[in-house]
Amino acid sequence: MAHIPVPENMPGIRGLMAFRPETAHPLNLLAEQLLQAPSTLSKGERELIATYVSRRNHCKYCASTHGAIAKHLLGDAGTTIESVLGNLQDAAVSDKMKALLTIAGQVQISGKEVTTESVAARKHGSTDIEIHDTVLIAAAFCMFNRYVDGLGTYAPDDQNIYDMIGKQRAQTGYLTPPMPIPLS
Amino acid sequence: MAHIPVPENMPGIRGLMAFRPETAHPLNLLAEQLLQAPSTLSKGERELIATYVSRRNHCKYCASTHGAIAKHLLGDAGTTIESVLGNLQDAAVSDKMKALLTIAGQVQISGKEVTTESVAARKHGSTDIEIHDTVLIAAAFCMFNRYVDGLGTYAPDDQNIYDMIGKQRAQTGYLTPPMPIPLS
Repeated sequence: MAHIPVPENMPGIRGLMAFRPETAHPLNLLAEQLLQAPSTLSKGERELIATYVSRRNHCKYCASTHGAIAKHLLGDAGTTIESVLGNLQDAAVSDKMKALLTIAGQVQISGKEVTTESVAARKHGSTDIEIHDTVLIAAAFCMFNRYVDGLGTYAPDDQNIYDMIGKQRAQTGYLTPPMPIPLS
Repeated sequence: MAHIPVPENMPGIRGLMAFRPETAHPLNLLAEQLLQAPSTLSKGERELIATYVSRRNHCKYCASTHGAIAKHLLGDAGTTIESVLGNLQDAAVSDKMKALLTIAGQVQISGKEVTTESVAARKHGSTDIEIHDTVLIAAAFCMFNRYVDGLGTYAPDDQNIYDMIGKQRAQTGYLTPPMPIPLS
């Protein structure tokens, strides 16, 4: 049970956003800008960064949701995500994405872990904006993960629920109201 | 030197916001809602939470800036901040603030550290919204701290600079442009 009273049938951040719409507004604007706005990183690549950080923070709701969004955007069966969450150096992504995910993993531990060497991601063609956005996506998910788990929210076990959320968010982004979820 | 090209004379998050105004907008809206909007927690109490988390994350720029803002808002010489950053249980704040700062310290480590027992903060009169906002302020500073340090930004040594920033933000909040800082 969550530490504060959230509406039933609203798992994870959904219940928190319903409880406190005043803070939901800037949080959704931030997610939309980071994950959906025009960028030289694809939406799927950005959701991959979000999923990678959420999994490292052991946030079941965020990792499952953004993993499902990434799966829909990348158009595979989740194989890219699983390869990244396995051994990153052997993952089925570009060298540039490996370098950016390495930076994201450092940010997950602490901002101070990011070194001049890791920013040598540039060697694989990353732009300054891509490096900036990678650091901020990783940092933002260190916030979202702590928000969702710190208030003790509910994370469903049923993968179909995350697939439904993933499909909706992949199509409509973060500024539309959440579709109802048929929780059992 | 920062890992990306930021304007000179713009330390910490200032340079990052100038580099990427698209993300600065929702970040400033979030800070304004969390730290300045009407609340049963005073602005000083909320800046105290932000400072406590930033110091635990060893983010010099954020801890110094928000510490200076808290000092201006609390109207003391920084004694409250220093007592909180020393031994929290003996700090010169209410039992309710001690309970909320304890929760904030748990969020700094991981959302999963927050327990039903720590949320017994309610015993000292905290409302559900105060608990929600404490968790989200702490989580947000885990983002801001990682953002500022993960991009290798510059943090001045001169305490007078933080006092200037602190005075401005205490008076005008987070939606006004930053005043120029006379960096030596």
